[in-house]
Amino acid sequence: MKVAGTHYRTIWEAGETVAIIDQRRLPHDFTVVALASLHDAAVAIRDMWVRGAPLIGATAAHGVALHMARDPSDAGLEEACAVLRATRPTAVNLMWALDDMRAYLAPLAPGDRRDAARARARALCDEDVAINRAIGDHGLGLLREIAARKGRVNVLTHCNAGWLATVDWGTATAPIYRAAEEGLDIHVWVDETRPRNQGAHLTAWELAGAGIPHTLVVDNAGGHLMQRGQVDIVITGTDRTTATGDVCNKIGTYLKALAAHENGVPFHVALPSPTIDWTLRDGLREIEIEERGAEEVTHLDGLGPDGPTRIRIAPEATPAANPAFDVTPARLVTGLITERGLCPATEAGLAALFPDRVRAA
Amino acid sequence: MKVAGTHYRTIWEAGETVAIIDQRRLPHDFTVVALASLHDAAVAIRDMWVRGAPLIGATAAHGVALHMARDPSDAGLEEACAVLRATRPTAVNLMWALDDMRAYLAPLAPGDRRDAARARARALCDEDVAINRAIGDHGLGLLREIAARKGRVNVLTHCNAGWLATVDWGTATAPIYRAAEEGLDIHVWVDETRPRNQGAHLTAWELAGAGIPHTLVVDNAGGHLMQRGQVDIVITGTDRTTATGDVCNKIGTYLKALAAHENGVPFHVALPSPTIDWTLRDGLREIEIEERGAEEVTHLDGLGPDGPTRIRIAPEATPAANPAFDVTPARLVTGLITERGLCPATEAGLAALFPDRVRAA
Repeated sequence: MKVAGTHYRTIWEAGETVAIIDQRRLPHDFTVVALASLHDAAVAIRDMWVRGAPLIGATAAHGVALHMARDPSDAGLEEACAVLRATRPTAVNLMWALDDMRAYLAPLAPGDRRDAARARARALCDEDVAINRAIGDHGLGLLREIAARKGRVNVLTHCNAGWLATVDWGTATAPIYRAAEEGLDIHVWVDETRPRNQGAHLTAWELAGAGIPHTLVVDNAGGHLMQRGQVDIVITGTDRTTATGDVCNKIGTYLKALAAHENGVPFHVALPSPTIDWTLRDGLREIEIEERGAEEVTHLDGLGPDGPTRIRIAPEATPAANPAFDVTPARLVTGLITERGLCPATEAGLAALFPDRVRAA
Repeated sequence: MKVAGTHYRTIWEAGETVAIIDQRRLPHDFTVVALASLHDAAVAIRDMWVRGAPLIGATAAHGVALHMARDPSDAGLEEACAVLRATRPTAVNLMWALDDMRAYLAPLAPGDRRDAARARARALCDEDVAINRAIGDHGLGLLREIAARKGRVNVLTHCNAGWLATVDWGTATAPIYRAAEEGLDIHVWVDETRPRNQGAHLTAWELAGAGIPHTLVVDNAGGHLMQRGQVDIVITGTDRTTATGDVCNKIGTYLKALAAHENGVPFHVALPSPTIDWTLRDGLREIEIEERGAEEVTHLDGLGPDGPTRIRIAPEATPAANPAFDVTPARLVTGLITERGLCPATEAGLAALFPDRVRAA
């Protein structure tokens, strides 16, 4: 999508290197960094220069390709996969991308791996873009329908399921960007999304770049807005979805789903099908929630008078808990927006769209 | 309540002056300030050195008394009330305290007003303490019952309805402080309460001073905690309550009430009866919600490497909305905790406890 009028993806080839946006510096600085080696790619993933499941997978694939240019031996391939696997051990897309790269490259002669790896990484990126664009096309119908009824469409979103989390388009944002392209009158309520503030830091920045009207609100405000009829539809992303339609997403999503349900506001979840875990049937019981460091709650990053800085908001030594995700039960989800179309958040709904995946699981 | 082992109220007489805690500097600094004049009291209220409805009323009463020591004439009395009234024009307790002071002092001879005003302000403060202590005694029963069943009691609270918002004890915190005095095993989940972070800044600080185990969480986390059975009871304060039991409180309260309702967690609201507006019957339609400045959302105060500072978290020029309160419908409120006892959040429940007020309205 666009940054200051120029189209960018989140990752692209630049000569012998791979370019990324250093997302740690957003929204206050837009900095492009060149990754020249396996080590560079591993650091970028581990230290969260890049984040978002699809982008992590894409960066890992390119990390393998960078290493194949230096050491295309079997040992080099194993080393690349092992180093990258260790960067974010719980990232499903990371594992999936590495498994794909290894399965594709291992049968090839080492001399062929350099070009093949680069082409494969490029293909994985293009596939992500195509999936998200398809999610956008399918979600667009929901927004068109609201626009036809009401004129302006007010969407609320939580966290950043935007193009910065993918290679392009984003998931929850894809229908929004498509709607803006079509000229619909769209406005987005952006949850700031404590504790890491991805809404304030990233989603607000993305939407400004695309010239889409938006308003930042604290996470506490969404219920009030829905109660007063100021939200027409909620669209979020998801980190993990069960075969029965339960959605595990950034902490606070569940509270918005409750408010949407209570106020008759449609609550949709946009997802590329790889985030569906076909082995899970009960999100609340089966998904373990990552507990992150207390400092994300007690401290906050931002731009101070002398540049980027970190402040402490709680009294010294205040104990804090930091569950990173929550589970929204399928019954609170109006529908899922996938690359193959819309479906209800039910086992039957998902099975009808993805019979091949159900069979494979 | 206690600060570093010493008992404090939020306002007390100190020679010819009135001492307060400069709450803007909490939690990073504990600073006591002497108010010596009407002007000092007006600045303290207007610039939020003191906050919380009961404490604002108490400070205004003492502000009138300070002025009566300088100019006890009828003109002086009118001037004191006018100056203080203009500091926070929407604060109901402020108006109520000023009306009380004027009605009490106006019939007296100017020469008698100095001592009478001081005694009356003192009496208003003592009355607030007695009301909150009574709320604590009535709420204590709820916590005792949970402790008897489960051992440890996990309370979740939102914002700061603590002793810092009153003269002492607080409202939502009064049952918690009473339970700690009784030796119950109590633990408090403290919502940070964006955008002004009164939970992180004030409630966490209060509880640490009292030695009560507590854990700070982001506002997004409460639903998840309730879903997982980690909250036994929610207790919040209220800024305004309708005769039918609708509760207008800090933004985000409604989302917690929805989650409590969904998960079978009792949701109680502690209130001194003066916060009941007996003329209101539909909180959602009749209560106008204050919209505060966008900067409270886009910027944040805290302690930086070189002392207190403010950071910007959103991209420059990001538009933000900042509704300060929301309305929780009575049907989501399990019960009200008042100075006269517990009651359901219904018109009949309130009328049974306060027949005299209903008649007067």
